[in-house]
Amino acid sequence: MAVVIPFESPAGASVDRLVSHVSSDMTRVNAAILSCTGSEVTMIPEVANHLITSGGKRLRPMLTLAMAQLSGYEGDGHVKLAASVEFMHTATLLHDDVVDESDMRRGKLAARMLWGNEASVLVGDFLLGQAFKLMVEVGSLRSLEILSNAAAVIAEGEVRQLAAAKNTATTEDEYLAVVRAKTAELFAAACEVGPVVADLPKAEQAACRSFGMNLGIAFQLVDDALDYGGKAAKLGKNVGDDFREGKITLPVVLAFRRGSDSEREFWRRTLETGEIGANDLEHAIALMAKHRALDDTITRARHYGAIARDALALFPDCEIKQALEEAVEFAVSRTH
Amino acid sequence: MAVVIPFESPAGASVDRLVSHVSSDMTRVNAAILSCTGSEVTMIPEVANHLITSGGKRLRPMLTLAMAQLSGYEGDGHVKLAASVEFMHTATLLHDDVVDESDMRRGKLAARMLWGNEASVLVGDFLLGQAFKLMVEVGSLRSLEILSNAAAVIAEGEVRQLAAAKNTATTEDEYLAVVRAKTAELFAAACEVGPVVADLPKAEQAACRSFGMNLGIAFQLVDDALDYGGKAAKLGKNVGDDFREGKITLPVVLAFRRGSDSEREFWRRTLETGEIGANDLEHAIALMAKHRALDDTITRARHYGAIARDALALFPDCEIKQALEEAVEFAVSRTH
Repeated sequence: MAVVIPFESPAGASVDRLVSHVSSDMTRVNAAILSCTGSEVTMIPEVANHLITSGGKRLRPMLTLAMAQLSGYEGDGHVKLAASVEFMHTATLLHDDVVDESDMRRGKLAARMLWGNEASVLVGDFLLGQAFKLMVEVGSLRSLEILSNAAAVIAEGEVRQLAAAKNTATTEDEYLAVVRAKTAELFAAACEVGPVVADLPKAEQAACRSFGMNLGIAFQLVDDALDYGGKAAKLGKNVGDDFREGKITLPVVLAFRRGSDSEREFWRRTLETGEIGANDLEHAIALMAKHRALDDTITRARHYGAIARDALALFPDCEIKQALEEAVEFAVSRTH
Repeated sequence: MAVVIPFESPAGASVDRLVSHVSSDMTRVNAAILSCTGSEVTMIPEVANHLITSGGKRLRPMLTLAMAQLSGYEGDGHVKLAASVEFMHTATLLHDDVVDESDMRRGKLAARMLWGNEASVLVGDFLLGQAFKLMVEVGSLRSLEILSNAAAVIAEGEVRQLAAAKNTATTEDEYLAVVRAKTAELFAAACEVGPVVADLPKAEQAACRSFGMNLGIAFQLVDDALDYGGKAAKLGKNVGDDFREGKITLPVVLAFRRGSDSEREFWRRTLETGEIGANDLEHAIALMAKHRALDDTITRARHYGAIARDALALFPDCEIKQALEEAVEFAVSRTH
């Protein structure tokens, strides 16, 4: 499967600059992460490290560090807050794999395939507990409020998605509400706690939150497009995973609505009832091309990227701000 | 003041087709509206008719009628629902003028200038009461639920905007939340009740609601841009009204964020403290041009317009659907 996504990807935009700006802080975050996954119960570090060392981009904790830098923060709290953001994310991944019955995660077997569903659920809970412990150590009540609220919103979003039957007629608004809760809320919280620990005024806190929220939406929409048009090796998961799992994402929402009656029948059969034949993924991708569903998903993502950039315009121009702007450009133009 | 807005307006898109498709139903709506403003208290029909006969486009009740048609509705309820939607809108305008201390409305003196604030508030309440009476007569509990919920959301949005101090550092997200509540919610409800009285499935109801919500957002954003770049005669209000009233709209949000420190000082002085000199409006418009704030407001509006169009794609192609799509195009490309 080597379908290459058809939208242009201006060379150059990457997260390299962001990575290099936060690299010394990130070393400390990684140390905090490793020290917190220790336990006498050997299965805990095994499962946790399986996922933690599997080479995620750590975009969320990087955002916390970058926002703290952008806010001129000089304390230590951002390191533990960044670690707890990553723990919250990892816990979500462990639980998601169980709910979605996924086999693969980041190019490796999902933890649940190696240790079982029970271990994935419980180690996820353990990591969530560690996340809260780290937050409490920082002692910023407002940060605790932001992150614990995010945890509740994320969980609520997952339950809402679970409770709603697989519905190809989902509106774009309904889908976006799920994206906001499941993905963007953690980006928003990760960004917001930076200016909060730095004691910046409310306007700057809201700006960082808005940056994270809109970057998160853009990021997820591009992810959705890539699942139908990326390269398996670079994705770290298989092209068509969303399709096989019957996930209703924006490319599906657009292709379904723009499709003919027989096309809609195809989407209902494959995604709602799960009867997927040998050539169905290829057909799905062809329908998306016909209706420009992937291109327009990227166009929508660019809208949220533009809002993210404008949100940050409140801050004086500096290198870390440029690195964050470049991260937005990367998020909307990446091909993996 | 003859600043012409710089974005292209493709000739042709208009609401004419929508108007002609609903014209016979609209005659009945107008009759219902006139019969409900009768009262022995002569001030009530005077104030109500002043606004009701002042030539608003009646876009909201037209949407209710069009959605009922699109849904194949064959009953009578849509006429009274459309009338109550217009009453809700008129009541909001009367109350808004009092809150905003506006002098003009639709090219005429605002009702409060002729009959005073008290009459505007109370006649607004009277119209809201009439709106609920009409809804109850239709007997669709779900429609009552949708419209009464909209009334609460609109009022909550107004109070939130009032309670928040004038804040030039408002984020785009925060501003959009206000637009959703104050403007788009009524568009959404007006559209949703069409398929509801026609007993269409939930997916079609959600599609119509989504169409209205996103059309409403697009409509308001273009309004915001026109307030700094339209022509006074066609607007029916003065260019710069929002500026003089210190309203924080999307063009301001973008120009403020993208501006220099001294430019931000200008926005704070004029909008937050209300010290407006002779050339300040011209300067404000120049700053918006410099930062492409009006163009990008329109670009953002086009995003919501695209979502509205896709929402409706669920319905089979027909003339009324095309008329609705053209109304979206009109909303984002109009110059008045």
